[in-house]
Amino acid sequence: MENRIRVNADRLHQSLAQLGQIGATAGGGVTRLALSDEDRVARDLLAGWMRDAGLAVRIDDFGNMTGRRAGTEDRAAIVAASHIDSVRAGGLFDGAYGVLAALEVIRTLNDQSLTTRCPIEVVNWTNEEGVRFEPAMLCSGAVAGRFDRSYVYDRTDRDGVRFEDELRRIGYLGDATARPDPAAYLELHIEQGPVLEAEGVPVGIVPGIVGITWLDVRLTGRADHAGPSPMPLRHDALAAAARLITGVETIARQTKEAVGTVGRLTLEPNVINTIPGRVTMSVDFRHPDSATLDALVASFGCLAAETWASTGVEIAIDRFWTSDPTTFDDDLLAAIQSTCEGLDLPHRRLWSRAGHDAKYVQDLAPAAMIFVRSRDGLSHCEQEYSTPADLEAGANVLLQTLLRLAGTADPS
Amino acid sequence: MENRIRVNADRLHQSLAQLGQIGATAGGGVTRLALSDEDRVARDLLAGWMRDAGLAVRIDDFGNMTGRRAGTEDRAAIVAASHIDSVRAGGLFDGAYGVLAALEVIRTLNDQSLTTRCPIEVVNWTNEEGVRFEPAMLCSGAVAGRFDRSYVYDRTDRDGVRFEDELRRIGYLGDATARPDPAAYLELHIEQGPVLEAEGVPVGIVPGIVGITWLDVRLTGRADHAGPSPMPLRHDALAAAARLITGVETIARQTKEAVGTVGRLTLEPNVINTIPGRVTMSVDFRHPDSATLDALVASFGCLAAETWASTGVEIAIDRFWTSDPTTFDDDLLAAIQSTCEGLDLPHRRLWSRAGHDAKYVQDLAPAAMIFVRSRDGLSHCEQEYSTPADLEAGANVLLQTLLRLAGTADPS
Repeated sequence: MENRIRVNADRLHQSLAQLGQIGATAGGGVTRLALSDEDRVARDLLAGWMRDAGLAVRIDDFGNMTGRRAGTEDRAAIVAASHIDSVRAGGLFDGAYGVLAALEVIRTLNDQSLTTRCPIEVVNWTNEEGVRFEPAMLCSGAVAGRFDRSYVYDRTDRDGVRFEDELRRIGYLGDATARPDPAAYLELHIEQGPVLEAEGVPVGIVPGIVGITWLDVRLTGRADHAGPSPMPLRHDALAAAARLITGVETIARQTKEAVGTVGRLTLEPNVINTIPGRVTMSVDFRHPDSATLDALVASFGCLAAETWASTGVEIAIDRFWTSDPTTFDDDLLAAIQSTCEGLDLPHRRLWSRAGHDAKYVQDLAPAAMIFVRSRDGLSHCEQEYSTPADLEAGANVLLQTLLRLAGTADPS
Repeated sequence: MENRIRVNADRLHQSLAQLGQIGATAGGGVTRLALSDEDRVARDLLAGWMRDAGLAVRIDDFGNMTGRRAGTEDRAAIVAASHIDSVRAGGLFDGAYGVLAALEVIRTLNDQSLTTRCPIEVVNWTNEEGVRFEPAMLCSGAVAGRFDRSYVYDRTDRDGVRFEDELRRIGYLGDATARPDPAAYLELHIEQGPVLEAEGVPVGIVPGIVGITWLDVRLTGRADHAGPSPMPLRHDALAAAARLITGVETIARQTKEAVGTVGRLTLEPNVINTIPGRVTMSVDFRHPDSATLDALVASFGCLAAETWASTGVEIAIDRFWTSDPTTFDDDLLAAIQSTCEGLDLPHRRLWSRAGHDAKYVQDLAPAAMIFVRSRDGLSHCEQEYSTPADLEAGANVLLQTLLRLAGTADPS
């Protein structure tokens, strides 16, 4: 049985709308790249809100912002986090929702004069999107020890501007002692996909982040005039590529939870009356399990070998990047599930097929994520939208789960 | 039984090599675009050779060059023709071989002091390739009435230079009364494809030029992140395009004499981790028969409708250009075949799947073509090559067929 405390949905909305004005685009979205002037203004606003809510604000050496609400015990905090940087012409909810819902939780606890045993912290991670400074999730990764500080500081944007110089310029270069150090970690985020909507479920409980692997595939056939070459004598690189594209789809459909995508393809000479001689294409496979991910790649390799043998088109595959799957903490997942049940909220388990800061924080502490339904599955665009009711529901799941984890000094 | 006259293969070769020096590329080919300085130098050389061989040279209002060898009867000539313009970095044989083999026939007749009843003319058509001034076969088409003179004169190259101005500049703007007016027409050409080589046959007898039709196909799906969209909810424009590409191959393979090619394809947004939302691709179908060409397009249309229904990817097809099939003259084809048999030359019927001036000349007079074997089927490139023996064989077929058609005044 959950207690009766609920977030203030109107206040959450007002905050989302106010933050969304910083870097607002004509199309109703935002462009708020990491460490830009827009990011600085948004950070200043957030820091002000944190202080107004009584949080002790600290900034670490990567610009990660932490607002701490003390508990009755002085120990490592339960952290609720996300990010307020965006992609170019992104939406109002990706990242910002997770940070402002966490802030709304704090405000709600304040309204109720409720003190937790364990401290609670709200964190805004720097440069989650990786649009301005590659790679994505740079500063949660740095805190988790995946990236050296010098590596982070030397990242440059497309104009050659260094991360460290921009961090200092916007006034958010803090101290290594101020890094987040969670006892447990929750990240609330929009789904960015169509599954919850398709199934009519507002909330997803995220057991982990799928593994991702990227292949670069080069097909070398023989360019020739489209006319004089009879079909059986051709070595058509695009016709061979078409078999691989169909194969990626088939292989992914045959494996539960798998997705496979050919997103990039170029051909030469790309002329209407010439048989394509060369094709380069990408393959993106994702699956929750490393061994299955390897099996997907192996199946694709077999298909490529068969295609080479039957078409005479030479096929070279380079598996150039892999991100291993992340599995979130079972106890946290159970706590979220109990919360959903207590709130009578329809929910389902749903793997994240995109990266989030929680992936790296999982190295430091038990972590889990909560998703809310996205309209049309859209994100990273101005049309990104979740209903007020779904945003409220997700924030209440965060509130109640934080209370479970942090414990109440004076249970209501 | 053929008479014993044979061309002088060495002399033919020397002429090909000498002409090949005009516009020679470092890679062993030529760049001799229509009405360029290189074309002028090549025309001057050819005109000199024609006059040295006793031909009366005339230039028409499109720059087409005709060298006439009188017969005992003053009437329309049997014409042997091709072109000496080339593509960029083309080969030594495409076009030039047909003109110089015709010249070699004249020289051989002179050596033998042989007079024909019907006059014989050697023609060099202007701008066959269409690389500098589109479309291809511009000036045979003009003589055949397919293009108005003003249309031809106003063609411009990529620098905006007009055809007529260039024709005047290089000194080859002649008179409309000088146009070729064949009684019958033969064009000797390299195959530009791999069929004769694959079958070990040096000579092809060309029953016609296939019809060609071009489609522009636009697929509209939904761009989305490669991760969060489960396979069944996707509208992947490239996955749908792959079915169409495979379908073009299948449809063409199932129809005798057909070829089908997807040579051009672009996709958006063309990013590794995004499901393609839009694809534009071309389709090139070729077949000797108009009705079958229509049937190929209809089959493709059915496949597109099925693909649209099963994938939700919208597919629009625009059949934007068609060149109808050309059927050459049966009597001429029979004459060429009898010649090959008389010369004990292996030969086969072989449709041309590329355009040639003979396509338009067929409107004016009975026409036919003779192909010789191309190494690796290559043309329009510096590697274009036919063996001296094959070039000699083709020239002898031209010689003996011309003699059959023109008739000898004093049979040997």
